Amino acid sequence: MKQSKLPMPLRGIIPPMVTPLVDRDTLDAAGLERLVEHLIDGGVHGIFILGTTGEAPSLSYRLRQDLIERVCRHVSGRVPVLVGVTDTSFVESVNLARHAAQAGAQAVVLSAPYYFPAGQPELLEYVQDIAGELPLPVFLYNMPSHTKLTFEPDTIRKALEIPNIVGLKDSSAQMIYFHKLRQLVADRRDFSLLVGPEELLGESVLLGGHGGVCGGANLFPRLYVDLYQAASAAQLDRIASLHARVMRLGETIYSVGQHRSAFIKGLKCGLSCLGICDDFMAEPFQRFGPDQRKQIQKYLADLGVSPSQRALQTAR
Amino acid sequence: MKQSKLPMPLRGIIPPMVTPLVDRDTLDAAGLERLVEHLIDGGVHGIFILGTTGEAPSLSYRLRQDLIERVCRHVSGRVPVLVGVTDTSFVESVNLARHAAQAGAQAVVLSAPYYFPAGQPELLEYVQDIAGELPLPVFLYNMPSHTKLTFEPDTIRKALEIPNIVGLKDSSAQMIYFHKLRQLVADRRDFSLLVGPEELLGESVLLGGHGGVCGGANLFPRLYVDLYQAASAAQLDRIASLHARVMRLGETIYSVGQHRSAFIKGLKCGLSCLGICDDFMAEPFQRFGPDQRKQIQKYLADLGVSPSQRALQTAR
Amino acid sequence: MKQSKLPMPLRGIIPPMVTPLVDRDTLDAAGLERLVEHLIDGGVHGIFILGTTGEAPSLSYRLRQDLIERVCRHVSGRVPVLVGVTDTSFVESVNLARHAAQAGAQAVVLSAPYYFPAGQPELLEYVQDIAGELPLPVFLYNMPSHTKLTFEPDTIRKALEIPNIVGLKDSSAQMIYFHKLRQLVADRRDFSLLVGPEELLGESVLLGGHGGVCGGANLFPRLYVDLYQAASAAQLDRIASLHARVMRLGETIYSVGQHRSAFIKGLKCGLSCLGICDDFMAEPFQRFGPDQRKQIQKYLADLGVSPSQRALQTAR
Amino acid sequence: MKQSKLPMPLRGIIPPMVTPLVDRDTLDAAGLERLVEHLIDGGVHGIFILGTTGEAPSLSYRLRQDLIERVCRHVSGRVPVLVGVTDTSFVESVNLARHAAQAGAQAVVLSAPYYFPAGQPELLEYVQDIAGELPLPVFLYNMPSHTKLTFEPDTIRKALEIPNIVGLKDSSAQMIYFHKLRQLVADRRDFSLLVGPEELLGESVLLGGHGGVCGGANLFPRLYVDLYQAASAAQLDRIASLHARVMRLGETIYSVGQHRSAFIKGLKCGLSCLGICDDFMAEPFQRFGPDQRKQIQKYLADLGVSPSQRALQTAR
Repeated sequence: MKQSKLPMPLRGIIPPMVTPLVDRDTLDAAGLERLVEHLIDGGVHGIFILGTTGEAPSLSYRLRQDLIERVCRHVSGRVPVLVGVTDTSFVESVNLARHAAQAGAQAVVLSAPYYFPAGQPELLEYVQDIAGELPLPVFLYNMPSHTKLTFEPDTIRKALEIPNIVGLKDSSAQMIYFHKLRQLVADRRDFSLLVGPEELLGESVLLGGHGGVCGGANLFPRLYVDLYQAASAAQLDRIASLHARVMRLGETIYSVGQHRSAFIKGLKCGLSCLGICDDFMAEPFQRFGPDQRKQIQKYLADLGVSPSQRALQTAR
Repeated sequence: MKQSKLPMPLRGIIPPMVTPLVDRDTLDAAGLERLVEHLIDGGVHGIFILGTTGEAPSLSYRLRQDLIERVCRHVSGRVPVLVGVTDTSFVESVNLARHAAQAGAQAVVLSAPYYFPAGQPELLEYVQDIAGELPLPVFLYNMPSHTKLTFEPDTIRKALEIPNIVGLKDSSAQMIYFHKLRQLVADRRDFSLLVGPEELLGESVLLGGHGGVCGGANLFPRLYVDLYQAASAAQLDRIASLHARVMRLGETIYSVGQHRSAFIKGLKCGLSCLGICDDFMAEPFQRFGPDQRKQIQKYLADLGVSPSQRALQTAR
Repeated sequence: MKQSKLPMPLRGIIPPMVTPLVDRDTLDAAGLERLVEHLIDGGVHGIFILGTTGEAPSLSYRLRQDLIERVCRHVSGRVPVLVGVTDTSFVESVNLARHAAQAGAQAVVLSAPYYFPAGQPELLEYVQDIAGELPLPVFLYNMPSHTKLTFEPDTIRKALEIPNIVGLKDSSAQMIYFHKLRQLVADRRDFSLLVGPEELLGESVLLGGHGGVCGGANLFPRLYVDLYQAASAAQLDRIASLHARVMRLGETIYSVGQHRSAFIKGLKCGLSCLGICDDFMAEPFQRFGPDQRKQIQKYLADLGVSPSQRALQTAR
Repeated sequence: MKQSKLPMPLRGIIPPMVTPLVDRDTLDAAGLERLVEHLIDGGVHGIFILGTTGEAPSLSYRLRQDLIERVCRHVSGRVPVLVGVTDTSFVESVNLARHAAQAGAQAVVLSAPYYFPAGQPELLEYVQDIAGELPLPVFLYNMPSHTKLTFEPDTIRKALEIPNIVGLKDSSAQMIYFHKLRQLVADRRDFSLLVGPEELLGESVLLGGHGGVCGGANLFPRLYVDLYQAASAAQLDRIASLHARVMRLGETIYSVGQHRSAFIKGLKCGLSCLGICDDFMAEPFQRFGPDQRKQIQKYLADLGVSPSQRALQTAR
């Protein structure tokens, strides 16, 4: 297999890929391949699997390993593959990372172990200990809404001394925090600072960030790649119109469900409507029912998006 | 192996057993047996393994299975064994529960999947779906500080219709919530309502609760059994003095560390000081260093507790 | 005017009186007198005005002073009157306290200034500074849900050295915290530890608390006085049945509204249905509309309570 | 007095002015005048008094009225004066607003009443009711960290129909929220959307906001005016260097204290070091002691700022 080299710093749009499933422990293998092609066709700069949008914590380890192998094989070095190895168990994180390395992934992504509320010194010691056991470059992942724990700037400052930590994805949606991190890594030319929430992609790139891990890029990879490029080129008018389009997704496709799962459910349902992959969701979530699906279809039509010919042959 | 029958309702003190480790992926097998004997000698009414105090989320699945087998074998039906199967992955929870059933455990304990913040209808649907796959009676476990999710009373009301749900452990420390649950299960004679925080054992039993899942019972099982019995018998003076002793643990042994891990670290260190088991902790935690250990030893001495003869043969 | 002496410690039921209004800046003077009589007839051990249930922060200072004068005059020493002086402004708190002293009140009640999130040393210094300016005995008031600030046990420990601090009302609903305070004041024979949430009255008195500042006692003073006495006498069966009645209020009268104001709105509406006083509410709240009022009337009927003959002559 | 007209929309830097005090109930009248001149000299586009940075909730009403009069008189129409009227009491808010109108202020600023946690419909009804009683144009003020209440976008959408609501200051530090508001007011040419946190001034103006209510502009008005102008002109390099300077204040002058009051304490101390006004703080805060003052002086020296000749004649 051709080996992709991880750019340093990694820049651009690296979608947190949804995990196509046909049931709670079986991948939608054909849908997975279509989704990977859809992303690469859209011009993305990398693919991040087994993140929050990928429902990683809800999947069995067997399935996670299966996914890693299939994605690495199918991507085949065309773009870097980043693999989420966040886990409450140190041992299981390391197991996943070794599997990712063997499969040919380019990096792993690591958040805080998310059950026990740890103190910052505990979190730092954890990162120091585990980084040494991870056989790939590491992106830290700040995701306090789900892990209950922020990587405080002072913890990041110390973690920057760990050799294989090469980037950070910030999903806190706190731009003041993001700016503090920017100041911290200002003289680390090889370090990649990525933003999670897609509504913040424009400003974070304008002000020195390297790109975004945007969930919406599963559906519309080109939109986010365009917005990234407009921001890189400081084209304010173009940013405004593309950003307005991103904001509209928040009011439409991501807002059909009532709970915080609405975002992932909307994405998966949209991908299914476009014929790209199945929308089965692992517990604790369930895919949308027919009424909600109709609403998503209507929103897609309003956005001028129609199912591709290779429509998913699913009657529902 | 003699089979213990699960009393309905389960009453009394069911310690959430710490998991004795010699390193992050190896049980302290001898210490584990000593700890089980220590608990049973102390008069406990059951043993709950793989809960929060047992560091379950930090352990590999291989080790969790090993622990289940060893505890079930060593307890050998003398008291019921309850096994925590809480997991972010439905599949892994079911795997653990099947393993527990095969090993001879009497029940499983299930909290909310703790990564994704789910809505109450999603949580209810999850519980309904998974309960049918669990081959043992189920205790629900309300633990919002770690799972980010409360089982709202209305969710519990509906979950009571699921046949194999036989009890609930509430670790919210919210007594108003606890009283609401009491009203809900008032006419369910076979349902066990247990309290987590040991500081609330007295009042919860006085007012109709069935017992406690008290972490401190790892160290001092008899103290909690005595307090449970005093509360069952409404002996207010005795409750006051035993409760004061429990409160003192909070100011001493549980308060040596700075972070929220202080409770488990103090328990494990105390057990090590008493020669019962090793105090190794799985990441993201680390056992206490020498200074903190000395402090724990001093507190134990103040409490009039000294190491048993069967001291742990560990030089540290 | 006959002067009531403040018992040390103050024990029993001290309702946080609602403030009867006819519009946003006018007292319902006749209703106020009926309400005071209703409470004293019900056997209460004191009256606390200008607390949260009294909507104090929503009232003009002019009206607060009017209320203090009228209540002190009408109570006329039959029970102690405690006056809430919590304010974001030190100067205004002191002004209110001086007014209360002149009007013949027995004590003031002081929470944290509730706009700025202060640190514990700042809070302690504030309490130390202001206590010296307050011309009456002071009850501290722990109300973190509204003030964003808890009086940490260590802050209380230091505040106990201030001579005119004679009690504390804890509305945190955290019984572990309450028990910590009990341990702190165990040797202060003259210090009164009161609980706010009425659902916790039984256990707090059983375990050493001195009574409750129960909002529901506005409507049903006798119920809470009875529960207090049952708890003082450790009559568990009687506690259980009275406590169940209190819990039922939470599911009925306090749950008609959708927001957190449902408690006060339900109380005021109930008092109006019983012909005791007007249910006008100061902004940001509004009294219940006709449908909700009907629901409250139905609940009152279910509880076997009917309007007294001295019904409020209001067509609504 | 010359009357300033309120620009529609109001654009630029409108510092939330600190309130110079010599003791808890007395203005530093000379310092106040020097501070107003310092701001106007710095090119600010308006002055906002009685906000959070102005310690408004900590001040007596008498002093607030005194401040309003003095500032309006001294500014004398050179820039618009906005007056904070946020209060827990509707009546007191209206009183302050009337006073502001009489004194010649151009607008009032209104946040949520901050004691009772209200629901969104209650908040909307409050705003609708009070706006009609306020005799000046109104800026809403989103400040959830202190009021416990966010103006949800849907509430804002409805509030936009109220005729005298002409702007909104968002101090939530949530840029996704800010972008939602931008979309909401996109077609309201006369509506001013201002950002509170100064670390977000650059991006908010780049992406369509109208300016900032930046606390740091008390000390360094020119810095913020320059940053505003750079952002208005989309000069990314200049934004980067000015923004870095703003970020440095956060690590220096605003971080001397330990608590959340560090920001205001640092500002007041800095102003005192520069000889502009006294640094007395109203309770619950206290000005910095000598060690912290020395630290502030050092930071000011590092920043190349030295006391003006018109130094405050205070020995401390």
